[in-house]
Amino acid sequence: MNQEIIAEITGQDYEATAREISRSISESLEQSGSRGVIFGMSGGIDSAVLAYICSTFAKERTLALIMPDTSVTPEEETHDALQMISMTGLEHKLIDIKPIVSEYTMFVEPDEHARGNLRARVRANLLYYYANIRGLLVLGSSDKSELQIGYFTKFGDGASDLAPISSLYKLQTRGIARHLGVPDRIISKKSSPHLWPDHDAEGEIGMSYEEVDSILYCKNEKKMTQTETASMSGIDGQKVSRVWQMCADSKHKRGTGK
Amino acid sequence: MNQEIIAEITGQDYEATAREISRSISESLEQSGSRGVIFGMSGGIDSAVLAYICSTFAKERTLALIMPDTSVTPEEETHDALQMISMTGLEHKLIDIKPIVSEYTMFVEPDEHARGNLRARVRANLLYYYANIRGLLVLGSSDKSELQIGYFTKFGDGASDLAPISSLYKLQTRGIARHLGVPDRIISKKSSPHLWPDHDAEGEIGMSYEEVDSILYCKNEKKMTQTETASMSGIDGQKVSRVWQMCADSKHKRGTGK
Repeated sequence: MNQEIIAEITGQDYEATAREISRSISESLEQSGSRGVIFGMSGGIDSAVLAYICSTFAKERTLALIMPDTSVTPEEETHDALQMISMTGLEHKLIDIKPIVSEYTMFVEPDEHARGNLRARVRANLLYYYANIRGLLVLGSSDKSELQIGYFTKFGDGASDLAPISSLYKLQTRGIARHLGVPDRIISKKSSPHLWPDHDAEGEIGMSYEEVDSILYCKNEKKMTQTETASMSGIDGQKVSRVWQMCADSKHKRGTGK
Repeated sequence: MNQEIIAEITGQDYEATAREISRSISESLEQSGSRGVIFGMSGGIDSAVLAYICSTFAKERTLALIMPDTSVTPEEETHDALQMISMTGLEHKLIDIKPIVSEYTMFVEPDEHARGNLRARVRANLLYYYANIRGLLVLGSSDKSELQIGYFTKFGDGASDLAPISSLYKLQTRGIARHLGVPDRIISKKSSPHLWPDHDAEGEIGMSYEEVDSILYCKNEKKMTQTETASMSGIDGQKVSRVWQMCADSKHKRGTGK
């Protein structure tokens, strides 16, 4: 893989990016007249970045929901989420969604994949429930890489009023996390939506985020063709084609036609 | 109120409209490679129109979910939904969402309004669960009037892959319903999302759909100002201003910036 592209993607002014994200959340709060923000805290890097950023300018107006399904979410994930809470000092609520998910699946045919997506949607429901009660804006924690390849559940983790890190590729999310002081363990652990047991993002996508981001970066920022991307990045042409296909196939999930 | 505007709104070629709606659903089915369609059947006019249209060209590929919350949905609504099923011959499933909603609200502070929106989102979850399992497209049943004034739950009944009647004002939905042979009782009963007991759409909006549609029609199709609309339609200026405000305030719910 071409390390120069990786360096170009990750070589950002993260201080300025963090400031811009805070500014845009503040602006949305003001425009919507909302009292604060709410988001789901998974124990992963994306929501950790949201927690750190919100703690810098909206500590008293942020609610983080930790929503494991104890039948599939590893205990360490909840532990990590709670650690992020204790490091940022945000208000939080811990809700096990297992009984809610079970209640649904009493009525429907069992299907592991559908149940995984259901978990993401149950979490969105809880976020919006609290958002309704308290007058909060729901923040989505999808980054640019996930949004572009459609690696999110439609109307699940894809459901939000605002997606503050939607302009950051996954590798940039890691960069800003480092800058903000998110613990290395959180940054370097395997990315996973934990929708089912042993759910591994890069395994499911079929390549590393270094590869995904290099391909997306060449596509979006360098306006390269698939052939140019493969030749320039040194990534297998089939992987390039796969990422392009994922972008095309997931248009409907973004709802903007883009 | 100016009856000429009402006549202009409702004077449509409903046969052509029905054909166009069928064509657009068929096209989406083909493009997405989906096996069929699914939608929520409430007993109201909007989903009745979907049922009648789908029964004409996709009878064997349509699943309708009837999802009352038996703690708030009047029994007559479920009865009406079942009658639409028997008249159209569509496959259906009847699921009482009361135990699911109760399971959520064991964990959260009680709030009647938030619980209402939760009901709409629980229904969306069930639709997407079956859509996932069977490879179906989720049809939304919001009409143009509801979408424009934001009279729907974000990521609840507003969540769909396709909104086939989104180009029809409420009065036009009534027109096409009559044309399709939907029973008069369904067409003429009070519009209600039944998110809480005695929930009445026109009561909540603060005016009749004749007024809402006249105002929207003057705004969208005639490009009139608020003052022109009030003077031309004979509707109170405060109501005109209220509808314009609802359109502006609900932009975020449509997610398109429009």
